[in-house]
Amino acid sequence: MNIFGNNIKFSIFGESHGVAIGGIIDGIKPGTKLDFEKIDLMMKKRNHRAVYSTQRAEADKYEILSGVVDNVATGAPLAFEIRNADTKSGHYKDIETVMRPSHADYGAYVKFNGFSDYRGGGHFSGRITAPLTFAGAIFKNELEKQGIFIYPHILSIGDICDKSFMELENICDLGFFPVTGKEIEDKMLNHIEKVRADKNSCGGVVEIAVCGVKAGYGNPFFGSVESEISRMMFSIPAVKGIEFGRGFDITRLTGFEANDNYYYDDNKNVRVKKNNNGGIVGGITNGAPIIFRVAIKPTPSIFKTQDTIDVKSKENVQLTLMGRHDSCIVPRAAAAIEAATAMVIYDIIS
Amino acid sequence: MNIFGNNIKFSIFGESHGVAIGGIIDGIKPGTKLDFEKIDLMMKKRNHRAVYSTQRAEADKYEILSGVVDNVATGAPLAFEIRNADTKSGHYKDIETVMRPSHADYGAYVKFNGFSDYRGGGHFSGRITAPLTFAGAIFKNELEKQGIFIYPHILSIGDICDKSFMELENICDLGFFPVTGKEIEDKMLNHIEKVRADKNSCGGVVEIAVCGVKAGYGNPFFGSVESEISRMMFSIPAVKGIEFGRGFDITRLTGFEANDNYYYDDNKNVRVKKNNNGGIVGGITNGAPIIFRVAIKPTPSIFKTQDTIDVKSKENVQLTLMGRHDSCIVPRAAAAIEAATAMVIYDIIS
Amino acid sequence: MNIFGNNIKFSIFGESHGVAIGGIIDGIKPGTKLDFEKIDLMMKKRNHRAVYSTQRAEADKYEILSGVVDNVATGAPLAFEIRNADTKSGHYKDIETVMRPSHADYGAYVKFNGFSDYRGGGHFSGRITAPLTFAGAIFKNELEKQGIFIYPHILSIGDICDKSFMELENICDLGFFPVTGKEIEDKMLNHIEKVRADKNSCGGVVEIAVCGVKAGYGNPFFGSVESEISRMMFSIPAVKGIEFGRGFDITRLTGFEANDNYYYDDNKNVRVKKNNNGGIVGGITNGAPIIFRVAIKPTPSIFKTQDTIDVKSKENVQLTLMGRHDSCIVPRAAAAIEAATAMVIYDIIS
Amino acid sequence: MNIFGNNIKFSIFGESHGVAIGGIIDGIKPGTKLDFEKIDLMMKKRNHRAVYSTQRAEADKYEILSGVVDNVATGAPLAFEIRNADTKSGHYKDIETVMRPSHADYGAYVKFNGFSDYRGGGHFSGRITAPLTFAGAIFKNELEKQGIFIYPHILSIGDICDKSFMELENICDLGFFPVTGKEIEDKMLNHIEKVRADKNSCGGVVEIAVCGVKAGYGNPFFGSVESEISRMMFSIPAVKGIEFGRGFDITRLTGFEANDNYYYDDNKNVRVKKNNNGGIVGGITNGAPIIFRVAIKPTPSIFKTQDTIDVKSKENVQLTLMGRHDSCIVPRAAAAIEAATAMVIYDIIS
Repeated sequence: MNIFGNNIKFSIFGESHGVAIGGIIDGIKPGTKLDFEKIDLMMKKRNHRAVYSTQRAEADKYEILSGVVDNVATGAPLAFEIRNADTKSGHYKDIETVMRPSHADYGAYVKFNGFSDYRGGGHFSGRITAPLTFAGAIFKNELEKQGIFIYPHILSIGDICDKSFMELENICDLGFFPVTGKEIEDKMLNHIEKVRADKNSCGGVVEIAVCGVKAGYGNPFFGSVESEISRMMFSIPAVKGIEFGRGFDITRLTGFEANDNYYYDDNKNVRVKKNNNGGIVGGITNGAPIIFRVAIKPTPSIFKTQDTIDVKSKENVQLTLMGRHDSCIVPRAAAAIEAATAMVIYDIIS
Repeated sequence: MNIFGNNIKFSIFGESHGVAIGGIIDGIKPGTKLDFEKIDLMMKKRNHRAVYSTQRAEADKYEILSGVVDNVATGAPLAFEIRNADTKSGHYKDIETVMRPSHADYGAYVKFNGFSDYRGGGHFSGRITAPLTFAGAIFKNELEKQGIFIYPHILSIGDICDKSFMELENICDLGFFPVTGKEIEDKMLNHIEKVRADKNSCGGVVEIAVCGVKAGYGNPFFGSVESEISRMMFSIPAVKGIEFGRGFDITRLTGFEANDNYYYDDNKNVRVKKNNNGGIVGGITNGAPIIFRVAIKPTPSIFKTQDTIDVKSKENVQLTLMGRHDSCIVPRAAAAIEAATAMVIYDIIS
Repeated sequence: MNIFGNNIKFSIFGESHGVAIGGIIDGIKPGTKLDFEKIDLMMKKRNHRAVYSTQRAEADKYEILSGVVDNVATGAPLAFEIRNADTKSGHYKDIETVMRPSHADYGAYVKFNGFSDYRGGGHFSGRITAPLTFAGAIFKNELEKQGIFIYPHILSIGDICDKSFMELENICDLGFFPVTGKEIEDKMLNHIEKVRADKNSCGGVVEIAVCGVKAGYGNPFFGSVESEISRMMFSIPAVKGIEFGRGFDITRLTGFEANDNYYYDDNKNVRVKKNNNGGIVGGITNGAPIIFRVAIKPTPSIFKTQDTIDVKSKENVQLTLMGRHDSCIVPRAAAAIEAATAMVIYDIIS
Repeated sequence: MNIFGNNIKFSIFGESHGVAIGGIIDGIKPGTKLDFEKIDLMMKKRNHRAVYSTQRAEADKYEILSGVVDNVATGAPLAFEIRNADTKSGHYKDIETVMRPSHADYGAYVKFNGFSDYRGGGHFSGRITAPLTFAGAIFKNELEKQGIFIYPHILSIGDICDKSFMELENICDLGFFPVTGKEIEDKMLNHIEKVRADKNSCGGVVEIAVCGVKAGYGNPFFGSVESEISRMMFSIPAVKGIEFGRGFDITRLTGFEANDNYYYDDNKNVRVKKNNNGGIVGGITNGAPIIFRVAIKPTPSIFKTQDTIDVKSKENVQLTLMGRHDSCIVPRAAAAIEAATAMVIYDIIS
């Protein structure tokens, strides 16, 4: 079911071309003052206008329906909605029964016996990350008050790769387009522009560092911090992999190389010499920054003609998509991932 | 909490050096005949004797306490236990407050205010995968009756790599030490022997293919098939990454290359030309084999002397481990992962 | 958290004097055609105009935000809202810190550190049963398609008592004001009018019969049918007791008198000679009608002056309420209970 | 599923005539010292020997399997078991397919497709309250350290009624057979002896008072304190009703009579003049004692010959039970209810 959380509860709803999208957030501390400037910034990051993003002119204007009086959370469930204003769903009618490759269409068609809302991916649309981003922004602000900061990083787009947080001296805020410098940003944007011009698309890797989480959070086994984070990340459309710390590369190290030795620093704080485990050992935080990377597949909506099937005629057909589609969703996904991280970390430490 | 499942419920308990380990399984269909031969084989796979595994002479003899009459499940919760027979915990006393690097010790120490059972990793021990394996074996048998088969694969150990299921013509059972041939097995065993001789350890990658799951299972967002599988996998100690289908590599493909085109085969069955998404799109199965890879870090318990801390004296100290420790847990982890996959897949399709 | 259900999930939100109330329903079968006539009837039952009910002119006009295309459920979460139109919350300002006796005010004040929305009971308002009624109406229609019917009954108001379903030959639909005849209805309405004229209020007992549920539903222990139903019933404001079958009276019978003997009828169907257990034995349905009674306390909002406290001044004060308040909520509660029963029964048999 | 709790998790297993019964408790605070004297007392209360109880000679000897080192909880799941020693299940074989009236037999037979363990009620046996009592005893001790005390009370047996906590000046510990005096105890025991001599059985009402719970616990709607308590109580076999405060009788009061007026006492503590709501208003505690009553039906196992069915022959048959059966379970149920209350209250305030 579309509910997230152990200590908080977040329910999500909506379709790309329905009346509204939104959610209910349960678990915001009574008395929490909502910082709409910060919420709006996060929403803007998820929705920014660029060559690579859809031209959909929607402002993602949210309205809070309950749980807030005079901008302060009451403790009751906070429901909110974002009305879908600019939905041209006409051209979806033509492809109602044509299954777009690598989209949820076919699985959803089977699961929902043909009743799923096919328009723009319906409930499976990446657009549904907008409510997630709104909710995450609230929790991100709360985390910051506790000294916990989340730093998103576009690590790669296609084969254009930035340096990892694992190699950087300092983990810090990398800005609106979060890479380590203008040069790499330009390379990435050029790459996106190139695939766009080719009616194609590209993917990438988003890296997240969470600094300030103390040791001792999480649970053994099914409630491990990695379990909780990964479960959230794979709820974001297009995510195909996640790795913590050194991730898959750690499998090529020896134990002696891989092990994160502890030491007391001069102030008798516990530190690790390396952070190959990404701040989580045995499912429990050890006080080091939580670092993980998320693989985002190339946008499946491309303008090249593709082979696929029509489930009505039961024939193999060709499909040429129209409408607005990002040629690369990585920068926008980075915002959704940042917000989603805030939600899951808040849930873990609550 | 240590409970897994939406449709089934599996609770786990025990410590490496406590009285017993075990679990409660709720959700086995009444009338299910338990196939103890198959269960025992799975338990043996998780516990096999080899140069690289611990010399602990325990037979992992389980006893069923409830829920079964005359080898048939009644529908009531099935509780079982494995008594810990051969526990020499004396030598752990010396290192009670010395935090083993890359073990759960320190996080657990903080989380449980110093009351956690430190002996052999306590509740965080890899030994707790024995109950998971027992339970998974039951569900694996049930899946096979429905035509769903799980194939484990040791894809790599250290930098010795086998061919992936993604490249193989046929996905099939690869045997007790699941690799594609004797040659690669020997290479891997040699590598393990080499690190063992060096008082060191190594990790690897386990690949799983699940064949026979029909299209339409899973849920959008928080209940995506990837979310459910990843949550389970990260509950297995030493897992640091997971990727589905082409995983992180898909980020370097274009959308056109990456997209899995559908087609009708001659019998009008829906097929995919490629399976870059590993059988899951938008969180929902599409009928293609579910393929994923799991990164297992090198065993943190090594016999080389390591730097670490003593939380009692609050001093930096050196630690030289004694006792029995696998220099490579990948082959045994493969069995736990196979069983865990069975449990999560059964839960998803129930 | 404000989420109900094991197989379905229902989230609820809203405050009496906020922007909107509503909910998200997850678990409606894809393809379900919504019968708005029946939904509207149920909403009207919960909101009918009478001498004893509030004069609030709100139409409880709901809007569906997602999960429905052309009046048919898609299988995605169905979100809906009811905007609060006619909210005169001004007079609540004066009593912001005066705790109304037998209302949630004081507990909520403590729980939410003084941040709860005090206006009209906020999230604790009986008005929040409107979303519950909307959702329940959908499930009631679905149950009827499966041959399961829910019959509400106003068993008593104050000390005016109707005959119980336990004594009636036939269990059947008792109409809009569900009692066994006009005479008892008039008596009840007179009683309500009398307490209203006296600036006082009264309570009553609502009885429910659910016919058509087959034997074998429910779970032993924590998931007993009585556990599930009672949990739902006590979520409805003002409910103070529940009893199944003969309820508290069964404690005065002997086992021989109390036991519900089974027999095969002429068609070899299993029947019970009595139904003292109200259709549930050992937490599991036995095929007989599920019968239970729910105690509704008198409306705590009365126009008589009452002693209470002001948590701001920390003084004992007197309170004279203004505004609109039902002198008896039993008839409206009966509709909410009917709808809530539909939801919980649907959840149990799903 | 057989799992209880939001903040704690308690899993239960076992059958009356299986290998063992027991459970897993997750959520005991690390460092909690187990007080085995108090646990044993509670176990003895549930299992005491008297004319009215079964002659089963079992000592209910529990063994702790995990989660405890040197009598102190580690924070890991505490698993425990009680081996079934004295099980003469032979005579159950004869009535395997004969459905005992008012037992779970028939519902279980349908639910589990005939595979349920019929011996002694199997998993539905009242014997399964032994694990519940063990677990509850631990939580009861923890509550007492926080100043929260639970007082059980046998309010009635058959039609022999004691005075309610609602009428008593002081709520206090009423001893091993918890009634207000020797006279009423004798009357009750005589009544039990009378029905026993008549091969019959009787039921009764158990009342519970919980003192010391502060205001502000619980949740609106589905997580109301009444919802949580009632859900737990109806998981205890033979419970058919629950009412809080004045319960069903409150429906005959006017609002003015029923309302619990608040006042500040001399120490500026908030008090209620009456406690008709039993310490819970709007689902939230208000600081007054939580008082509720639970209806226990007469033991369905009686030695009189009864009419019923045989599901194998599909014939109406007569059944004459043999073996050991309590003619009144109320005193033993009182202990289970006391323990269960401790568990649910601990869960609510955690």
